[in-house]
Amino acid sequence: MKNPVRVTVTGAAGQISYNLLFRLAAGEMLGKDQPVILQLLEIPPAMKMLDGVVMELEDCAFSTLSGIIATDNSELAFGDAEYVLMVGARPRGPGMERKDLLEANAKIFTEQGSVLDRVASQNVRVLVVGNPANTNALITASKLQRLDASQVTAMTRLDHNRAISQIAAKTGSFSSSVKRVIIWGNHSATQYPDIHHATVDGASALDVVDQNWIESEFIPTVQKRGAQVIAARGLSSAASAGSAAMDHIRTWMQGTPTGDWTSMGIVSDGSYEITDGLIYSYPVTCKSGHYEIVQDLEINKFSRDKMQITEQELIEERDAIANLL
Amino acid sequence: MKNPVRVTVTGAAGQISYNLLFRLAAGEMLGKDQPVILQLLEIPPAMKMLDGVVMELEDCAFSTLSGIIATDNSELAFGDAEYVLMVGARPRGPGMERKDLLEANAKIFTEQGSVLDRVASQNVRVLVVGNPANTNALITASKLQRLDASQVTAMTRLDHNRAISQIAAKTGSFSSSVKRVIIWGNHSATQYPDIHHATVDGASALDVVDQNWIESEFIPTVQKRGAQVIAARGLSSAASAGSAAMDHIRTWMQGTPTGDWTSMGIVSDGSYEITDGLIYSYPVTCKSGHYEIVQDLEINKFSRDKMQITEQELIEERDAIANLL
Repeated sequence: MKNPVRVTVTGAAGQISYNLLFRLAAGEMLGKDQPVILQLLEIPPAMKMLDGVVMELEDCAFSTLSGIIATDNSELAFGDAEYVLMVGARPRGPGMERKDLLEANAKIFTEQGSVLDRVASQNVRVLVVGNPANTNALITASKLQRLDASQVTAMTRLDHNRAISQIAAKTGSFSSSVKRVIIWGNHSATQYPDIHHATVDGASALDVVDQNWIESEFIPTVQKRGAQVIAARGLSSAASAGSAAMDHIRTWMQGTPTGDWTSMGIVSDGSYEITDGLIYSYPVTCKSGHYEIVQDLEINKFSRDKMQITEQELIEERDAIANLL
Repeated sequence: MKNPVRVTVTGAAGQISYNLLFRLAAGEMLGKDQPVILQLLEIPPAMKMLDGVVMELEDCAFSTLSGIIATDNSELAFGDAEYVLMVGARPRGPGMERKDLLEANAKIFTEQGSVLDRVASQNVRVLVVGNPANTNALITASKLQRLDASQVTAMTRLDHNRAISQIAAKTGSFSSSVKRVIIWGNHSATQYPDIHHATVDGASALDVVDQNWIESEFIPTVQKRGAQVIAARGLSSAASAGSAAMDHIRTWMQGTPTGDWTSMGIVSDGSYEITDGLIYSYPVTCKSGHYEIVQDLEINKFSRDKMQITEQELIEERDAIANLL
């Protein structure tokens, strides 16, 4: 067994965390030989519920769970953390406009960003899951001084997985046969799931599906999948979001397979003519805990337009909370 | 990759299943090289919610998930199943007496037992999780003709894990250092968590904790842990129950470690003077998919009394639904 690492999860009593924490504690994210200390953050009204989650974590007798800190104090929660999963966010309440939602979250992530900059491990890797994830990550990254903005990422892995799964179902393939899909932009309905570079069992995806399916079914299905799940379950995607969060960190650390890549929301360096500094989802390869944007992909007019639509939304989100950056 | 195996989960849209299914699909129960076909059973009113769960399972793009059948038809759900997790059960409704609850469940498990006897794999292994688990397992086993009653088990692994976790916390040890605890009897508040044979880091547990703690804290805590979790979370144990269900099947198939055992509710063969034919939780060792009761443990008067109290409850449960056996 390795030495334990500290993993922070915010919004720890919520539904996504309830699915995520048990898999994380069982060693599914970092490996069966990597013990973890879970540092669970909640707001005071949710602390009692969090106590119940802690009891259940204890009751699993996981050999990879070295300790649990359950707290409403963000300094304790982020202290020495190697991984931070920012799952907690303010959901849209009755009468809240989009701008109100952005601002309410901006305040949370301003505070949390400052604290984690001060107390987390120098090598911390941060994943923002709570929506609006890209802009919440932007705010978090903007508060970093000791740490680097590249250490903060936003989750589009759920969208990436959904895109793979749709292509696999359409072509009758295993999901493991589908490679090189891309989610560009925002984790929202403007995201652009791009299959121009994707392969299915080694063949170009464009050769096995038609343009009409891409435009009228594939793209809208991936964009609106979250709403579809809510319509069926009566509750938002929790288990699949938790699963994608673990995939995101695991791939970041263990690397992308040769010949494949993944999608991550990261600080734009201007690649593909996207506004510098936005948190934008790009195709990236990962190796030993580092990621790199896949460069020089050919972008046609169809893709360019869609990449700009989602970029535009991210610019508007940024401008709505510009006073807090 | 091996050939896929069919795993049935009943009550598939419920909370325990929502935590269990994603780990099962990710290969956590049967191994990362063992693809599964999930056969999910629900009652008609829950089929829409189950559709949402299926979407989320697809959205995870698990490489170990070969297929999903979601149905309200038990023949389809149990067909050729190698593993059956009977999670679904009728919860106690307003005004229901204990006898009403036993009878309502007896009807469900009578039907499901008959169907699985007819259509499941000859080697199927069945775990009953839905409460009252022991008596639901008794009814299921009583309907078998082609299959053997020994193929049906009831879950006391959650209690077993809880006992380990309490001892580990009390002695400041890792849960992996605690061995040979026993849950005797019913998965209910009469169960007897026995540490007379347990060891902590190789030393007798009785030498490191005192009798007063055992009687006034340990036993009641394990017995009533479910109620404590409900009081804190506002919801019953779901993630820890799902985790224990996977532990149960994994241990059954992969075996108990040398020098240790686990607890399983199984058909009594009269061992330890327990009434023949009851589904009673015993200490068992497992090897290659077979289990055996640990024999010849010394039982003192304290333990004997508690083993009989929980046996008596199981006799009463059996008698309450005797007309359906």
